[in-house]
Amino acid sequence: MALHTPAELLALVNSSIERLSLDKKPFRLYEPVKYTLSMGGKRIRPVMCLMACDMFGGDVQKAIPAALALEIFHNFTLLHDDIMDKAEKRRNMDCVHIRWNDNVAILSGDAMQIIAFDMLKELPDPIFRESVGIFSKTALEVCEGQQFDMDFETQENVCEAEYMEMIRLKTAVLLAASLKLGAVVGNAPSTQAGLLYDFGIHIGLAFQLQDDLLDVYGDPKTFGKNIGGDITTNKKTYLLIQALKRADATSREQLERWLALKDFQPDEKIKAVTAIFDQTKVKDNCQQEIERHYNMALECLKATQTEIDRKEPLMKLAAGLMYRTF
Amino acid sequence: MALHTPAELLALVNSSIERLSLDKKPFRLYEPVKYTLSMGGKRIRPVMCLMACDMFGGDVQKAIPAALALEIFHNFTLLHDDIMDKAEKRRNMDCVHIRWNDNVAILSGDAMQIIAFDMLKELPDPIFRESVGIFSKTALEVCEGQQFDMDFETQENVCEAEYMEMIRLKTAVLLAASLKLGAVVGNAPSTQAGLLYDFGIHIGLAFQLQDDLLDVYGDPKTFGKNIGGDITTNKKTYLLIQALKRADATSREQLERWLALKDFQPDEKIKAVTAIFDQTKVKDNCQQEIERHYNMALECLKATQTEIDRKEPLMKLAAGLMYRTF
Repeated sequence: MALHTPAELLALVNSSIERLSLDKKPFRLYEPVKYTLSMGGKRIRPVMCLMACDMFGGDVQKAIPAALALEIFHNFTLLHDDIMDKAEKRRNMDCVHIRWNDNVAILSGDAMQIIAFDMLKELPDPIFRESVGIFSKTALEVCEGQQFDMDFETQENVCEAEYMEMIRLKTAVLLAASLKLGAVVGNAPSTQAGLLYDFGIHIGLAFQLQDDLLDVYGDPKTFGKNIGGDITTNKKTYLLIQALKRADATSREQLERWLALKDFQPDEKIKAVTAIFDQTKVKDNCQQEIERHYNMALECLKATQTEIDRKEPLMKLAAGLMYRTF
Repeated sequence: MALHTPAELLALVNSSIERLSLDKKPFRLYEPVKYTLSMGGKRIRPVMCLMACDMFGGDVQKAIPAALALEIFHNFTLLHDDIMDKAEKRRNMDCVHIRWNDNVAILSGDAMQIIAFDMLKELPDPIFRESVGIFSKTALEVCEGQQFDMDFETQENVCEAEYMEMIRLKTAVLLAASLKLGAVVGNAPSTQAGLLYDFGIHIGLAFQLQDDLLDVYGDPKTFGKNIGGDITTNKKTYLLIQALKRADATSREQLERWLALKDFQPDEKIKAVTAIFDQTKVKDNCQQEIERHYNMALECLKATQTEIDRKEPLMKLAAGLMYRTF
């Protein structure tokens, strides 16, 4: 069977989302769900799910319920995270808790989570049970990642291993599960589905490290957020954790002074902290780590048993995520 | 097979809850879950689920995952409702958002919802898919009920039909689904499971109307909350909706004046509004409605095809809920 193009899969995801029946009462429950899902975004998870299914010659139509469940769950996490982070904008639109209020945002998020689980029951029988298991395990891990992330805000020492585990849970497992679910629907043997899961984990880790890097060293014209945002908020990123570990006594003291300072000019702090990052060479260090995970991801994909040209869409998607061209 | 006593079923539920592995990291995610589940309560939903299974001669052990899913989901709704209502106490203990904070309460609630769905995958195969369907449909309805309830706070006119639909969604469907899930696990034919569902709906409606009544006319010594709480907060209960409909022009005007008043002595308002309730005979009206639903519930139970003595535990539980002796 001929492979679908990424554009075809994206169109399939978007048309399926549009067909969800969300024009229901109570409007203040379902409108925010519709609003959140219509914000768009790259639909990376559902597209990955369909790609994985397609890669093993499965019927992508059959994987739609899983793809939608993943996208709805992901959007639910953004909705609730935005309340917790007191974020105001998401994709240039008001967050749900801003446009409506906190209560509406909490409850419509709860509803989205239920809708996500409910989607799964459209999956055919031999894989239904396994899919619920993968989905609920992953969903719980994403919550764990979010809690670790919040814990780290006030935790004084966060080591590299703790940080990597946090981003694995918060970001990587959902990408990995998207691929695994697609592979399972495509009737891939479990070792093969497992290889795609691992591919997703490494891509997810590399992607998140890349995000940390771009926050400091990205091009303000192409990076969606303000450069240095993580520095001004003392976010314990890979770069900061490494810098604290690698800096000599003087630099470390300087860095800690900046971290403790309540009153500062953002530009000045960004410049000073970036200088310490430069000095401790954490940029190279982070880039190496990104490369390492990216290569490990590619090894997993290479080891997957299917024709090489069927792997191409995932290979390209991974490259796109790395170089943010996707 | 001999029937289990309610005490045996309650003990089974409690020991199963205690065996949940919740001593895990991140502690600020799982501790609030454990805390919420350890607050106790009457465990009405899981006990009803096991009773329904038992009634049809099913193995109650097999229904434990469904029973736990119901109790965990119910406790999740309390946890998130307490944030939305800004409640401070629940069963004489600090609410999660008070003891920790809003973010911890939002996220640990989210985790509870996932854990509830995850429990279901322990159910045996022919009934697994049906159970997920019943559960997700019901869970979404509970969210709808909560949103209608919040909408009614600012909606000027709420009619009886809207109110009954709200309490059906917010309270009755989860009791009904508890019975239906138990019946399904107990291999009851679908018409029989449907009868128990309807029994649960009518019991739930009667129970909620009873709650409205007790809030005004209950004995302060045995009613858990302060008498007149609904009156001081202008809650659109069955009594208020009926009184607004039945009152003559003078009483209606008086009632509306009290509703609009921002500055008042609670005791005075409770006394005045109760007097209008007395005058419009809404107490009798409400009692008749409770009776009507209670009788309809008993009719459903009567119609269920199983030996009469197997129906006794549910009959007694229903009576207990009505007269609040359970």
